[in-house]
Amino acid sequence: MRKAVLGLDLGGTNIKSVLFDPAIDKIIAQNQIPTQAGSGVSRVVDNIVSLIKDRLDTAKGSRHKITSLGIGSAGLVENGVVRNSPNLPGWQGSVPLLKLIKDRMPGVDLPILIENDVNCLVAAEYAMGAAKGYSEVVGLAIGTGVGGGIMIGGRLVTGAHGGAGELGHMTIKMDGPLCKCGNHGCLEAMIGTEAITERYRSLNSKLKINNLKFTVAEISVRAKRGEFAAIKTFSETGKLLGVALASIANIFNPQVIVLGGGVIQAGKLLIDPAQQEMLKRVMPYNAKGLKIRAAKLGPAAGAVGAAILAYRDSFK
Amino acid sequence: MRKAVLGLDLGGTNIKSVLFDPAIDKIIAQNQIPTQAGSGVSRVVDNIVSLIKDRLDTAKGSRHKITSLGIGSAGLVENGVVRNSPNLPGWQGSVPLLKLIKDRMPGVDLPILIENDVNCLVAAEYAMGAAKGYSEVVGLAIGTGVGGGIMIGGRLVTGAHGGAGELGHMTIKMDGPLCKCGNHGCLEAMIGTEAITERYRSLNSKLKINNLKFTVAEISVRAKRGEFAAIKTFSETGKLLGVALASIANIFNPQVIVLGGGVIQAGKLLIDPAQQEMLKRVMPYNAKGLKIRAAKLGPAAGAVGAAILAYRDSFK
Repeated sequence: MRKAVLGLDLGGTNIKSVLFDPAIDKIIAQNQIPTQAGSGVSRVVDNIVSLIKDRLDTAKGSRHKITSLGIGSAGLVENGVVRNSPNLPGWQGSVPLLKLIKDRMPGVDLPILIENDVNCLVAAEYAMGAAKGYSEVVGLAIGTGVGGGIMIGGRLVTGAHGGAGELGHMTIKMDGPLCKCGNHGCLEAMIGTEAITERYRSLNSKLKINNLKFTVAEISVRAKRGEFAAIKTFSETGKLLGVALASIANIFNPQVIVLGGGVIQAGKLLIDPAQQEMLKRVMPYNAKGLKIRAAKLGPAAGAVGAAILAYRDSFK
Repeated sequence: MRKAVLGLDLGGTNIKSVLFDPAIDKIIAQNQIPTQAGSGVSRVVDNIVSLIKDRLDTAKGSRHKITSLGIGSAGLVENGVVRNSPNLPGWQGSVPLLKLIKDRMPGVDLPILIENDVNCLVAAEYAMGAAKGYSEVVGLAIGTGVGGGIMIGGRLVTGAHGGAGELGHMTIKMDGPLCKCGNHGCLEAMIGTEAITERYRSLNSKLKINNLKFTVAEISVRAKRGEFAAIKTFSETGKLLGVALASIANIFNPQVIVLGGGVIQAGKLLIDPAQQEMLKRVMPYNAKGLKIRAAKLGPAAGAVGAAILAYRDSFK
């Protein structure tokens, strides 16, 4: 019998799962089901629990025994309670996710760890991705929201009550646009997907007239085809990202900054101008040897990281 | 015989020393000599060494035996090498301070630790000052420069090569004034003493005509007397500080932020508007229970912190 860990990533659209063999850092199986976030907390918890039970049942006939469970969730996570999870409607306030899950699985004796999803991404990239071999790591996940994860000495920084790492809510332009969090000029308000699509609209006069809106993925395709407005959208976004990277380098002096999230699909179109702007602004010694890398593990990173953290935690 | 630790704080004007009893967290003796920074690296090192020898000689006749030595220095400190120390003219580039000191004291077998001065301040406030009893602490020292120190889980964060904690070079206004570091809109460029004296000048039309310049201490006296322009100088500076405090709270979710350095003498005139601005901008949960406190230990904090860190290090 080999030990395995189940990792879940609770996203706004899907709940992803991986069955992970921690001895060889390998994904054994993965699948996903719809979150049904719009149907409320209770339905989402039911879906999580049915996915867990299904995975436990499947494992019974195999040579793997599931010894622990990790769950990555957006929002601020403290002792199994999830707060401020913006992409799960109805999850405003505090959701005691750990208790809700355990109450629905009375017969199942499985240690469960819940952690912020970007922290999970950083843990996965640290264990087997873009930050492998480094202990001083900062991760940024750029999507609708901009999340962060901080690793110091190989350990995630969680803060006084799980709120550390909100790098998307670092002010880079104090008189800048209003952010959903209430602050002005947050990184998220300047480089999140809404800011990018709006930037493309205002750069592309045709769109202004037609009042069309493109997704970041579509703008990325247009940029790779050579469209000027699309390329400029990513280079301007990259410059703003570079302002934040310089601050991050000055604050943490990390070895690696890992960039993840949907927006990073734009690749060099975004990362090159970001790196150039960072080098203009950072204290030179803090840029020495600093690597800016795109995340390597793709969409499964969150679930893999949750599994890895749960496995580590089981030795405490 | 009681164990004692010698702590030095290498400042632009004076080298301060404390003899510290780590068993009871108590300063036994303190003194200082001029740094003579303008006379170059070699003279400064001579002064450091003569101060150390003098303290060792004095201790010989006492009931205290000096078992280790800590030195706090401005700049980026890595393995006894000091870099970018802006308030020591001629210390541009790398100064191998540890080696220079040891070479001048061939007969003396004393473990020596050198650490960034704001990290020393944070260590001292953590051990016996404003951050006592807390493990998640961020310190800001606001003077000519704005330095930072980060403590997570009771341990200082130094980064890949000693550059972590440069919170003064976090961008809060990306299109803001040029900073000495080359970046625009750094916290230091907006709330360091030069920015404050310039703010007072532009708020006080009389000064503009007379072309006078007041120090921050003088502006502080005028503000406490009720002078409008002086009060407004600190409230505007406080607001800018508050922008940075919100980012710091969102990034670290600390229990305490300790504010030190000469500018903090302005007290509530600065700290109250800073706190108000922070509360407008911070994610509410990250402000929960957060304490913004003035440093308690005064001018000896750096030397005390250096002693404490050297003492701790001697157990490794």
